[in-house]
Parts: sequence; structure tokens; C-alpha cells
Amino acid sequence: MNKYERRYTRYKDLVNAKLESFIEKNNPSGIYNPLKYILKGGGKRIRPVLLMLCCEAAGGKPNKALDTAIAIETLHNFTLIHDDIMDNADTRRGKETIHKKWDRDTAILSGDALLGLAYESLLKTKSERIGEIAKLFTNGIIEVCEGQSYDKEFEIRKNVSLGEYIMMINKKTSQLLVCCAKIGVLLGNGKNKLLYSMENYALNLGLAFQIQDDLLDIFANEKKFGKKTGGDIREGKKTYLLLKGLETVKEKKDKELLNSVITNKGLKKEKDVLAIKNIYERYGVINSAEKEISVYTARANNYLQNIKSTDSRLMLSWFSYMLLNRNT
Amino acid sequence: MNKYERRYTRYKDLVNAKLESFIEKNNPSGIYNPLKYILKGGGKRIRPVLLMLCCEAAGGKPNKALDTAIAIETLHNFTLIHDDIMDNADTRRGKETIHKKWDRDTAILSGDALLGLAYESLLKTKSERIGEIAKLFTNGIIEVCEGQSYDKEFEIRKNVSLGEYIMMINKKTSQLLVCCAKIGVLLGNGKNKLLYSMENYALNLGLAFQIQDDLLDIFANEKKFGKKTGGDIREGKKTYLLLKGLETVKEKKDKELLNSVITNKGLKKEKDVLAIKNIYERYGVINSAEKEISVYTARANNYLQNIKSTDSRLMLSWFSYMLLNRNT
Repeated sequence: MNKYERRYTRYKDLVNAKLESFIEKNNPSGIYNPLKYILKGGGKRIRPVLLMLCCEAAGGKPNKALDTAIAIETLHNFTLIHDDIMDNADTRRGKETIHKKWDRDTAILSGDALLGLAYESLLKTKSERIGEIAKLFTNGIIEVCEGQSYDKEFEIRKNVSLGEYIMMINKKTSQLLVCCAKIGVLLGNGKNKLLYSMENYALNLGLAFQIQDDLLDIFANEKKFGKKTGGDIREGKKTYLLLKGLETVKEKKDKELLNSVITNKGLKKEKDVLAIKNIYERYGVINSAEKEISVYTARANNYLQNIKSTDSRLMLSWFSYMLLNRNT
Repeated sequence: MNKYERRYTRYKDLVNAKLESFIEKNNPSGIYNPLKYILKGGGKRIRPVLLMLCCEAAGGKPNKALDTAIAIETLHNFTLIHDDIMDNADTRRGKETIHKKWDRDTAILSGDALLGLAYESLLKTKSERIGEIAKLFTNGIIEVCEGQSYDKEFEIRKNVSLGEYIMMINKKTSQLLVCCAKIGVLLGNGKNKLLYSMENYALNLGLAFQIQDDLLDIFANEKKFGKKTGGDIREGKKTYLLLKGLETVKEKKDKELLNSVITNKGLKKEKDVLAIKNIYERYGVINSAEKEISVYTARANNYLQNIKSTDSRLMLSWFSYMLLNRNT
């Protein structure tokens, strides 16, 4: 473990320790049992750690950003609870989802309550810039919801362009990272120039992260990933891979099979899932995705130049590297 | 129309006018079409008007409370959208509910986005006490969620006492009114004594309001109420009436029928619904409910004595009267 990995782990442990005691109440159990369950469910905690790292990069003390970081992580978990209902996902991080372990209504309601608790934590933030911070946080929620709405819309629509896909993942994934980065800089009392740089770092990092997610859905180690691979093909999701495939593949039979992922609203047979994976490999779709991830990551890292501290710059550059090379 | 009714109508019109243009975006349509639809769907707007009246009672300008009042009304609509999914309600205010007109996922997501928009409006509040206001608002969300969770829990549980029922409606209904009252007083820069009085006014008003709601579910004019009466019996809801009935009725046959509302998870036959209504009348359950409503309303109005302005005192007293005598 190098020193950056150690720092990431240390901040992640701080977040996990705080989340461990985040839910103080027991009743009504219909809300607080599922919330204890999901908040103890692990995860990479990349959003709160990013916020702490950006606070540090601006010259602030990351420990003082902890309540705010927790607010972001709980907001993220709120979106997971509701997205899992909409996506009919049975598992998350290798554990049953709330709507599966309990029921739909419990998942809706505990998610709603978690958003309230997220604001409760946010409002503990001690900063002269709390007004701006609360607005960024609120904007993050709206962006994530819009992203999810486009994602659902794209599932139904026949024609979705790669450009529209990037717009969607910007909202669904990047904007919450942007929210972390900017709030972190504000907490560290950073200047506008740094705010701008870190916003763009987070934006590009988010795009790389999401395309990586599409790749992992196909090739991840099932045990580590915590869910069966190929889920996006089975669900008929318009991922980077599928859209790039549709743009690239000319051969009739292969193109028809790709199209059938959309027209059939997903291919359930293992044979078909494997055939799609095979097309992705044969036509260089996997390579394109990997290249795209590298490009966005490089673009993200370029924005790190405005950070004064070499240590912070290297830390965030390691952070991008870690996300790019994750296998879960 | 007396002058108090005119003022209520004027404030309600201000709220409606603001709500008319509240949703500025069109896309993604999966979020913004349903939100435009529900926010134009009418309603009594009692929460935002209460907030404005409490601001006025504290000596503030109600017009300046409009963004905050809109935040509360949109928060309330967020809870309606999600509650309607959980309650399988097909109509609301005489119109199809969002999950019925669109689908479940659209209702979950547009509700989530609406909560974000509610905070966006809240954060426009210009007040030195915005920190306290945001905390009260956030606490309101958590209380409403807890109330709804208890409500769902009570649907399944065999034994629920009237005391537990009051605890539940305090959370589900009163606490959001408390939130309106306290925020209104803070916006008007009122003193702590007034804050305490208006909190208790709103709390008792909320209890009266909810028991009235249980009564209206049985006896309202169906056209005006916008939904079929007797829904609570069909759904097997543990209302004030049912719980009071179970406490009061001794005769075996009648008690068994009341119990069957719970054990059968609702009685669907019109004949049975009528028989339950008949029991409520014969055993004085209706009278008890009406008495209870009067008691809570009187208790609420007693707390108005701390308001300096006679006009504001009479206005709020008319407001309670109006809620007590509504038929929708």
C-alpha cells in the first residue's frame, strides 16, 4: 500500500466509522432498520473521500469536512435505494437490495427519510459559505434525478445517440462528483480558479467512471462485483458499449443481434449475452471504451495542475488512477 | 365572503400564481410534466397560507415569505406523490395520481426531484435565521416520513391504541404544520414565546385536521372530496373511527365486523362498508370524533392569545374554523 492508498483508506475509515453511528434512532423500524442495513453495506465511499481530498487541496482540514462528506454519501445512498426499485435490482454490493429484503414501500420511504437525514448532516457544516454549499448540494440532487429520468427515458426510446448518453451520465454520475469537488473547495476556502479546475476534474472523472462501470458490468469478477455480469444486456440498457456497438457494427447479423437488445428490452439467454460480449470484442468496442476512459481520465488529471500542493495533486491523481483500475 | 376568507383567498392565489410558473424546465419530461400536472392540481394550500399568516402574526410581511411558503407546499406535494404510490390511490383532488397516469417509477423520481426543488425554493429565503429555518424544514421531512412509516406499520399490526394513533398523526400531519408555523414566526422575527405558542397552535390544529380527514373519508360529498367515500374501510386503515369503535363497541356481532376490517385488510363490499358506517353512528363514534375535533381546535385557538395583533388573532381563529368546517 503506498501513501496515497493509505490516505484514501484512512479517510474511508473515518467515513465508515461516522456512518456506523449515523442512524441514532430505532423506531419506526420500517425506516431505520433498512437505513442501518444499507449504510453498513460498504462501498468505495469515493464521493465523501473526494470531498475531503478537495477540501485538503484547497488548504482546508479534511476532518472538518466530515459531516458534509457524510451528507453526500447518504444522499448517494438515497439515490441507490430508489434506483434499485426502478431498475428491479435484486442485489447491490453483494447484498439484497432494500426493496427485495423488505418491500417497495419500505424502500421508497426509507429513501425519502435518508434524504432528510442527509440534509440534517449537511446543516451541521460549520462554514461561512454554508449558503453556497447547500445550493450546490440541492443542485446535485436535481441533476441526479434528471440523469436517472433520462436513463429511464432512453431505455424506452429507440434511437439514443452517444452524445445523449454522455449528457445523461454527466447528470447521473458526474454532477454529484462535481458537487463533492466544489463543496470540498468551498470548505477549504479555495479560490474561484481552483473551484473551476476541480469542477472540471470531477466532471471528467465521472464520465470515465461511468463508462468504466459499463465495462465492469460485462467483465467484472462476479464475486467481487457483487452482482452477475451482463446485467445491462439482460435489462436492455443503452450503455456506452451498446450505443458504440450500434454505431460501429456494419455486418447485418451482428447488427440485428445488437438491435434485438433494444427491441426485446434485454436478452435473457446466456447464449445471447455471450454473443453480445463477443461482438463488443470483435469490433473493438471494448477497446474504444477503454480508450475513452483513458481520455477522460487524462483530461481530468490535467485540471489538477492548479493545485498548489504537490502532495494533494499526486493524491488526486492516484485517486483517478485507482478509479480507472478498480475491478468492482 | 368575510374579510378573513378574502385574505385566505388572496394568499392562496399568491401561492397558486407562484406555483403556476414554479416548474421552469420542460426536460426531462419524465420529471417535469408530472410535476407541472400535480402543482396545478389545486388543493387548499393550507400549509403555505399558515406560514404566511404566522409570519404576519409575528409582525413580518407575508409577501416576503412566499418562496419559503412555496417550499413547504412543494414538500407537501412530494409526500403526496409518494404516499399515493404506497396507498395504491388512483385519484387525488379528483384527478388521477401520478403513478396511475404515468407509472410507479415516474412517481418515485418526480417526487424525489420535487424535494430537491423544494429546497431550491427554501434556499431563496432572505432571512438572518435561514440556518434555523432550514433545520426546521429538514426536521419536517423526517417527521412526515416517520409518520407515514408508523401509518404503514399500523396497517399490518393487529393492536394499535388510540394513543399510538395520535402519536402517528402528530408526526404525519401536525409536524409539517408546526414547521410552517415556526418558520413563519422566524421569518417575521417573532420572539420565542410566540414561537412556542404558534407551535402548539399548529400541533393541535393538525390533530383536529387529521381526525376531520378520517371523518370526511366516510361522510364527505364524493364529488367535492374528489374520491369515493369509505376508502379507509376498503383499505383496512386504522383510523380514529375504527380504533375508537374497537374501544367502544361491546356487542359481539358488531365487534366482529369491526375486527374484520383489520383481519381482512379492508372490506370491499359496499354492504359491509355501509354496515361499518352504521356501527360508527349507532355507538356514538362519529360524535366522539366530532367532539375530539372540537377539543383540539379549542386547544389550538387558546394558544392564539399570545398574538399581539387582534386582527392576526382573529384571522388564525377563522383559519381553524374554516379547517374544522371544510367538506373536502
